[in-house]
Amino acid sequence: MIHVYTGNGKGKTTAAFGLALRALGNGMRVFIVQFMKGGESGEVKAIKRFENASVLISGTGRFLPPIKEEDLEMAREGLKAARDAIKSYDMVILDEINVAVHFGLIEVDELLDIIRRAECEVILTGRYADRRLIEIADYVTIFQEMKHPYAKGIEARKGIEF
Amino acid sequence: MIHVYTGNGKGKTTAAFGLALRALGNGMRVFIVQFMKGGESGEVKAIKRFENASVLISGTGRFLPPIKEEDLEMAREGLKAARDAIKSYDMVILDEINVAVHFGLIEVDELLDIIRRAECEVILTGRYADRRLIEIADYVTIFQEMKHPYAKGIEARKGIEF
Repeated sequence: MIHVYTGNGKGKTTAAFGLALRALGNGMRVFIVQFMKGGESGEVKAIKRFENASVLISGTGRFLPPIKEEDLEMAREGLKAARDAIKSYDMVILDEINVAVHFGLIEVDELLDIIRRAECEVILTGRYADRRLIEIADYVTIFQEMKHPYAKGIEARKGIEF
Repeated sequence: MIHVYTGNGKGKTTAAFGLALRALGNGMRVFIVQFMKGGESGEVKAIKRFENASVLISGTGRFLPPIKEEDLEMAREGLKAARDAIKSYDMVILDEINVAVHFGLIEVDELLDIIRRAECEVILTGRYADRRLIEIADYVTIFQEMKHPYAKGIEARKGIEF
């Protein structure tokens, strides 16, 4: 089934990683591709402890736009890995892929083509989820931000925001 | 800081566990109390692999109401553990505590008294978050359900819903 976690609220990526944890705890195999993001976050470090979890970081970590060839290349690589993983894993998490689609790094038709055939769980996260992804999804949760300390000028904290 | 994950959408508990994973990956110590719930879910099994994570399941797993003495006792025990953990852990997750407050198993004033003094991260999850908890919180995300296969009559699946 297809899950979409979108909206501007905190918790989309962590919800996906929590779902990975749930699946791993039940003996499932999980593949995670992180689009957009560059470095290795706390959750990536932690999930790598599980032998049934694989992570591919396939972003530049740069703030977009402008879009460079490198951004497009990383997104293409991530999508290729996703296409393969969907055939053999129980759960495939495409973190921030909605943002990659939003910025035109990935064609929504190509993504739809890949996930439509999926027999495993596919989780798509990130703001700006495309209408067609929401239409095809079985689960859609909108994460709505009601309060965030950013508003008070507090910066992202290690262990909490990344 | 205080985080509240509420609303009727899927992902509140998994977002909290994902946040735990992020914290653990950054070397933080995490304590999780699960209110309401009875058994050991996939995510609990998985997170127990981390030596810096402790989990207390402090619910009966029964559907409420009616409320029995056992429900009240479990909630009291969970709250007591939370009060202690807040003094020594970096992150304390009180999963489904909003529901326990909603059903009157926990007095909101008592909970406010505990979390107001917290110097660590405190995450409160569950539907029906009390207005006073939202007021005191630094982060509030409303998980809004837009689509869920329950609506099509599909039942909870192991590895996905628990």
